[in-house]
Amino acid sequence: MSRPVDERTRQLQAPSTALVTKHAEDPVQDLANERKRASFSSQELCYFLNGGKEKVERRAQFAEVLSKTSWASKEQQYFHTREEEYVHNLRCSLGIWQKMTSEKLSMDDGLMMRTLADSPGGLELHIGMFMPTIMSQGDAEQQAKWIPPCLNLQIIGTYAQTELGHGTFVRGLETTATYDSASQEFILHSPTLTSTKWWPGGMGKTATHAVVMARLILGGKDHGPHAFIVQLRSLADHMPMPGITVGDIGPKFGFGGVDNGFMRMDHVRIPRANMMSRFSKVTPEGSYVPPPPANAKASYATMLFVRADIVRNSGGVLSKAATIAVRYAAVRRQTAPGPGQRELQVLDYQNVANTLIGLVGSAYACWFMGLEMQARYQRFEADRDKGVFSDLPELHALSSGLKATCTGTTADGIEAARRCCGGHGYSALSGLPRLFASYVQNVTWEGDNNVLYLQTARYLLKALAAGQSGKPVGGSAAYLGQLQQELRSSCSARGADCWGNPALALAALRHRAARLAVSGAATLQAASSGARAPLKFEGPAWNSSTVSQIAMAKAHTEMVLLQTFMDTLQQARDAGSLSPPVLAVLGRLCCLFGLGLVEAGSGDLLEARWMTGEQAAAARTQHRALLAALRPEAVGLVDAFGWEDYALNSALGRQDGDVYKALLDMATVSPLNRTQQGPAWESVLKPVLHRKPLPKL
Amino acid sequence: MSRPVDERTRQLQAPSTALVTKHAEDPVQDLANERKRASFSSQELCYFLNGGKEKVERRAQFAEVLSKTSWASKEQQYFHTREEEYVHNLRCSLGIWQKMTSEKLSMDDGLMMRTLADSPGGLELHIGMFMPTIMSQGDAEQQAKWIPPCLNLQIIGTYAQTELGHGTFVRGLETTATYDSASQEFILHSPTLTSTKWWPGGMGKTATHAVVMARLILGGKDHGPHAFIVQLRSLADHMPMPGITVGDIGPKFGFGGVDNGFMRMDHVRIPRANMMSRFSKVTPEGSYVPPPPANAKASYATMLFVRADIVRNSGGVLSKAATIAVRYAAVRRQTAPGPGQRELQVLDYQNVANTLIGLVGSAYACWFMGLEMQARYQRFEADRDKGVFSDLPELHALSSGLKATCTGTTADGIEAARRCCGGHGYSALSGLPRLFASYVQNVTWEGDNNVLYLQTARYLLKALAAGQSGKPVGGSAAYLGQLQQELRSSCSARGADCWGNPALALAALRHRAARLAVSGAATLQAASSGARAPLKFEGPAWNSSTVSQIAMAKAHTEMVLLQTFMDTLQQARDAGSLSPPVLAVLGRLCCLFGLGLVEAGSGDLLEARWMTGEQAAAARTQHRALLAALRPEAVGLVDAFGWEDYALNSALGRQDGDVYKALLDMATVSPLNRTQQGPAWESVLKPVLHRKPLPKL
Repeated sequence: MSRPVDERTRQLQAPSTALVTKHAEDPVQDLANERKRASFSSQELCYFLNGGKEKVERRAQFAEVLSKTSWASKEQQYFHTREEEYVHNLRCSLGIWQKMTSEKLSMDDGLMMRTLADSPGGLELHIGMFMPTIMSQGDAEQQAKWIPPCLNLQIIGTYAQTELGHGTFVRGLETTATYDSASQEFILHSPTLTSTKWWPGGMGKTATHAVVMARLILGGKDHGPHAFIVQLRSLADHMPMPGITVGDIGPKFGFGGVDNGFMRMDHVRIPRANMMSRFSKVTPEGSYVPPPPANAKASYATMLFVRADIVRNSGGVLSKAATIAVRYAAVRRQTAPGPGQRELQVLDYQNVANTLIGLVGSAYACWFMGLEMQARYQRFEADRDKGVFSDLPELHALSSGLKATCTGTTADGIEAARRCCGGHGYSALSGLPRLFASYVQNVTWEGDNNVLYLQTARYLLKALAAGQSGKPVGGSAAYLGQLQQELRSSCSARGADCWGNPALALAALRHRAARLAVSGAATLQAASSGARAPLKFEGPAWNSSTVSQIAMAKAHTEMVLLQTFMDTLQQARDAGSLSPPVLAVLGRLCCLFGLGLVEAGSGDLLEARWMTGEQAAAARTQHRALLAALRPEAVGLVDAFGWEDYALNSALGRQDGDVYKALLDMATVSPLNRTQQGPAWESVLKPVLHRKPLPKL
Repeated sequence: MSRPVDERTRQLQAPSTALVTKHAEDPVQDLANERKRASFSSQELCYFLNGGKEKVERRAQFAEVLSKTSWASKEQQYFHTREEEYVHNLRCSLGIWQKMTSEKLSMDDGLMMRTLADSPGGLELHIGMFMPTIMSQGDAEQQAKWIPPCLNLQIIGTYAQTELGHGTFVRGLETTATYDSASQEFILHSPTLTSTKWWPGGMGKTATHAVVMARLILGGKDHGPHAFIVQLRSLADHMPMPGITVGDIGPKFGFGGVDNGFMRMDHVRIPRANMMSRFSKVTPEGSYVPPPPANAKASYATMLFVRADIVRNSGGVLSKAATIAVRYAAVRRQTAPGPGQRELQVLDYQNVANTLIGLVGSAYACWFMGLEMQARYQRFEADRDKGVFSDLPELHALSSGLKATCTGTTADGIEAARRCCGGHGYSALSGLPRLFASYVQNVTWEGDNNVLYLQTARYLLKALAAGQSGKPVGGSAAYLGQLQQELRSSCSARGADCWGNPALALAALRHRAARLAVSGAATLQAASSGARAPLKFEGPAWNSSTVSQIAMAKAHTEMVLLQTFMDTLQQARDAGSLSPPVLAVLGRLCCLFGLGLVEAGSGDLLEARWMTGEQAAAARTQHRALLAALRPEAVGLVDAFGWEDYALNSALGRQDGDVYKALLDMATVSPLNRTQQGPAWESVLKPVLHRKPLPKL
């Protein structure tokens, strides 16, 4: 990025150390003071959250190394044009890949570097979807043929499912793969505008191949979507293959480094061997061999893995936003209480603390939920290998709803954190706009959040019906199996102190979830014209009662989040893996998190008469008291997430608190400052300003 | 933007008309069908909302003309680099300015063009702050000297108040202006890093001058912030003046066309005549002449005007987002109810309708509130010229809280609308990411929303205290003057039908506001150690109870929004300015808006025992019934806002519904598609892919 810089600009770009005055030193001192106020060791907690001292230190080393490479440096991150970002991030992905290969690093190391560099590029789906699909859906011969060139980066793949007019509803895909038995080829075709493949990452300008989902047509019969490998570009010159129209879908909210693409096929012929054939097959004569029935359950594995990973990631991303905003709120000062007095740290305003410490609590809840989801996924894999699928319905329902709640919480939480940073939160240099814009697609991809909540709602309504007909209900929905008992329960709180035990908040959330399940069922019943027949979880009645169903599913997952937070602390207490001071502060945070959910859902709880107005007020009193108690712990709690400056790349979230110097230094090297006069002077401004003689002023 | 395009890219860029198939035609037909379903004339409503047929037609003409100019064309809007956006938007501002001058157009016409072009650039503060400040705070001589070169664009100004470390708290500004009576000059100086001026629009690379807010120091005495004109750049070559360091603050979330700047002064000398002297003055000898006391009240005028304008704008921006999302939800289809059946329009899912029709209601509420605020501002001006300021406290409190509620509603509403658009909502071509990123600063600037809510809360607590001591309370807070009566009231609803009258929702919101005011006062009282002395609306007790105070202020403004919606319809009914079908549909929308607020605030109302659980459930039933009744009106209601395709610049929000063709056409010309191989092929991809011989596949 070296471009000519004029002399005065060079002066301008001199580091601002000369400007460090007593005022500029204040924020550094403020943050150091905050760290002294915490009652616990943030380092101990950091090791606990991140899998131990060794991992934390290893990650810090990677951060150090990466920050000094040209390909993973973030110095230009906020200044790239779309094209520069695409090229840079591709170089970064290739750099990590080559470092892993040449140094024989583990997959864990690779994931660590990817998380640190946070520069998604054209290889995302090659690694995340193309190779995994061949491994899981290709037969042995196909794996032997395609995986080696993938690993050698002789070909780069992507995964093409979504179409311009078709997302959520996979059965609606229009692309066809018609078998021609004469030549033993499939003819891939995009019959309509809306069948244009749209969104595959890396397809725009990077990928040479794609796994394409297309309707398999055999002798005029439609067998629905199947997976085929299609070559998109020449390996010699990277130009599109005959019959292929392919390009980038244009700029997005964020994620500019990834070349999401579109692709149309005009009767493109591929060999029969390119259909993924581990499960279903087509014989040379054109007969269909359907997949074995057991496959359906096993195929949930990828989806579960991805959702567990999204939940885990949500805690990571929200913790980044919370780290930036809490540190800045501890050094930013606004409004002096009296003449001659110092302005207050904004974290000392109750509404700021309420937002930010609330977000810290949510970040811990999502973080622990992610660890738990990963553990449950591993148990699922072990069960699956023994042919046991009993946990699958629960895991599918839970992972759906938790994906929705955790991504929604994180997306909204980043923006709430950004707004807490005042004007500087609007600067790209805070890191928060990019974090939001790149994260927010998580509420849509891998299942739109509302569509996923409806999956969870179906599971809950079935559990409710099972319980009412006397069948046992286990897992997270067990309370629906003991409905009458649950509906008879009420709040035991006598005063604010009682709410200091998170078990009471958990009881509240469980009761709320039960009530909403009952009212969701009643709403569906009413919409079904009161029919006595079993309720249908699709169709007009269902579609006209989705607001209730979504509310029910969300309430259930909120209960699960609190339960998991509490269980995590109990296990650490039992195992002695956290010291009493850390357990004490996390216990308060867990309770704050639960009471925040109770306050937000108080309408439901009061309507159900589970609690009285006085008890609701007492919960609020306890919540505000915990907020005050946690105020001095705030910086310690975000330090414990362990984010390196390189990972955050934020002028406001720096570990040393020297935010104003950072803002000025980062702004000074931005592209618009390459010249003093700016890019409009000669061609636009000068002709206007010099139309008349210069004014005498 | 003409760059070389290779031959195959040219083919790729051929318009996609050849692809228009039956599927592609569906959305066009869907939208046409939706328009037939509305029970009212959207054109009649459009004229009502936009000040009459003549204005609507004039705006459409401007849209047509602007779209065909090079300087206001939006063809490249989503593809600009930051530098290109800066230059383009500056050209656009200058283009509008020159068109106004050469065609002698009115200020109204100019505002209309600015709204349509929506390309804020380097002249924003020249027009919006520099000239207005000279007109309001400069004396006659200063106006005569500075305004003509401003109007001739011989100089371009900005307004520099905010500093790196100082935003909300103006009294904390650090920049100094020290008078030197020997030379009759002021010495402007930036003593610290945190005193660096930061954020002024146009300061980065455009402005030649600035009104600088600096502490006036006379003979060692600090008289607080005053306004001074400082020349930043040479008029000959646009280079910074001696002692001035100035540049752009770097990229932001949005608003890339505006060169927000930073500026430091190193003992810069300006003549005594450059201090704005209409009110306070400095004599040649260095004596201070303070402003006359009446000025304080009059100086609220600009602030009120700006806030009224922000409220008006909020309805406009939210209506844009609602237009895009509702139209797309009417043509987007997901999930077939059965085999062989057409997929459903997503607007037919209750949760989608709930979000989107809810946003339409909020957009109308903000729109009507904006018109009312402007009318009240005009009454204030008329009163002020007669020396009457009795409406000022109410107007100040209302405009503060409404600015917060309307900008918060709009910012969150744009994002909610975007999420309703599924994956395509994440594409920049939907228009929604840019709308959000450029709008969202409104929750921060011109008073951070929470800081403004606290202003409103102070007013309400004073009104409460006045009422309790028997003094009359008027205006929007009149209910606090009749507190006992209000607290004794309860919900009269017997069944869902009763909630069909928005007056009941209004009663609910008024009661909620009263309860929250009482509990806000009690919380403050408790935090003040129960002191019997009059409550203080600042200091530690206040700071530790801001969550309650903000809730109180927000509740008050929600009541005012519903009241204004209802009043607007009543006035139109009385004046016969809307036909019965339009009044009927707006009546239902108004009720839906009110019930949405009641549902969100049901916890407070149940806690206060104003309503029972059954009544809350009945309100919900009525809300869902209204949602279903308004479903066929949705497209008509957004058509009535009257946004031209040029104004929206959205592939998804097109008037004709041809969304998929638009997405493909717009993506095809994006910069990454200039070559088939993309910008990484030669330098990055080819060296990797060709390391080994090409694989045989």
